[in-house]
Amino acid sequence: MVMTKPKAFIFDVFGTVVDWRNGVAAVCAKTFDEKNIDFDPHHFADLWRGEYQPAMERIRSGNRGYLPLDTLHLENLERVLNQVGLAGHFSNEEKIRLNTAWEKLPGWPDSARGLLQLKKKAIIAPCSNGSIALMTRIAKFSNLPWDCIVGAEIAQNYKPHRDAYLKSVAALGFEPSDVMMVAAHNDDLHAAQENGLKTAFIPRVTEYGQHQSKDLEPNGKWDAVVHSIGQLAEIEY
Amino acid sequence: MVMTKPKAFIFDVFGTVVDWRNGVAAVCAKTFDEKNIDFDPHHFADLWRGEYQPAMERIRSGNRGYLPLDTLHLENLERVLNQVGLAGHFSNEEKIRLNTAWEKLPGWPDSARGLLQLKKKAIIAPCSNGSIALMTRIAKFSNLPWDCIVGAEIAQNYKPHRDAYLKSVAALGFEPSDVMMVAAHNDDLHAAQENGLKTAFIPRVTEYGQHQSKDLEPNGKWDAVVHSIGQLAEIEY
Repeated sequence: MVMTKPKAFIFDVFGTVVDWRNGVAAVCAKTFDEKNIDFDPHHFADLWRGEYQPAMERIRSGNRGYLPLDTLHLENLERVLNQVGLAGHFSNEEKIRLNTAWEKLPGWPDSARGLLQLKKKAIIAPCSNGSIALMTRIAKFSNLPWDCIVGAEIAQNYKPHRDAYLKSVAALGFEPSDVMMVAAHNDDLHAAQENGLKTAFIPRVTEYGQHQSKDLEPNGKWDAVVHSIGQLAEIEY
Repeated sequence: MVMTKPKAFIFDVFGTVVDWRNGVAAVCAKTFDEKNIDFDPHHFADLWRGEYQPAMERIRSGNRGYLPLDTLHLENLERVLNQVGLAGHFSNEEKIRLNTAWEKLPGWPDSARGLLQLKKKAIIAPCSNGSIALMTRIAKFSNLPWDCIVGAEIAQNYKPHRDAYLKSVAALGFEPSDVMMVAAHNDDLHAAQENGLKTAFIPRVTEYGQHQSKDLEPNGKWDAVVHSIGQLAEIEY
């Protein structure tokens, strides 16, 4: 492969760098236990995440102004609690506390170490739909050594809207072709590539649990396919 | 002193964390040398910095939309080169290269280590008038381990405009009273305090050279006065 060396690597975070499903389920399990609620915490995490795309789509489509993901997560939590008949168990304050489950997401085993290696070679930053506040707290929780944070809040719009990529690249002071987008999701990379960024796919085949059916393989012409974040530091560009 | 412990420390950067004057002068000295230009590089750095407040004031006053500091630095460079009769020595490309002097600013001796200590206790971030791109490059150059970057670009306005403080605090997901502003400049702390932030003064008595006459002492009721960044990690709140 002959290509110019990326000057920055920007990362999808939920699923690509951290294991949101087990992280959210762990906090839910503890909370449900304290409240004697009998509900599968992984199923709850899946329902909660299931509201993610529709909530963002209301903003991407222009039907609603930008709101940070923390607010959408809280609205989605209320929606799911109602849906499964658990709303009566939670005060507003308790819902706000449960919403911080999204701040306590463990990195995949290669994440912290791989980012540290890559940081020696280039600028590294999340380009996530999470807010600056949320990305900062996840980074503290899982020792992710970002150089800075770009993404939805900088762009005031959500991936895969082009603003989320192009305004992030501009905030870094680069051109799109200087920057490599790294994701476990082919859709994210298709949007990044259409906007002129370089792309790297890293499969995370248990992101959605043992029976995951999507994003098991790359489905586009990505500039790199790696199996750990550290491998991105070892590629000869 | 009895106060609640800050959840985040946000820092002025030029002068407080890094030595902009010697950093800029070092790059100018090298460039002038290559071009056989006989001009005192520290005097040049002072003239360049002298255009800083007027350039931002045009934006703070609403006479001009937000532009990142990198753009203002380049405009200010052109202004100073004209002023001292050196404009003819530089192509546009060379001016752009000289403008990166602001990315190569050394930390004060206590900065990198102090920030690393403080990072274990709270969120640390620059709240500078520099852009995200500039703050990221300075951090790389001087090993400043920020958790995230807030400041003028997030706020789309320059300190001491209140937006620069309040939008930075909001981006961190905190209330103003949760956050301590750290600066070597009393004016910066007056504005932060008026907007409800906690304040810490750290004198940097050679920021403007050996004959510095301002900001040698605290001139307000600051919550803390320290002589190194590391001391902020040791205070009992």
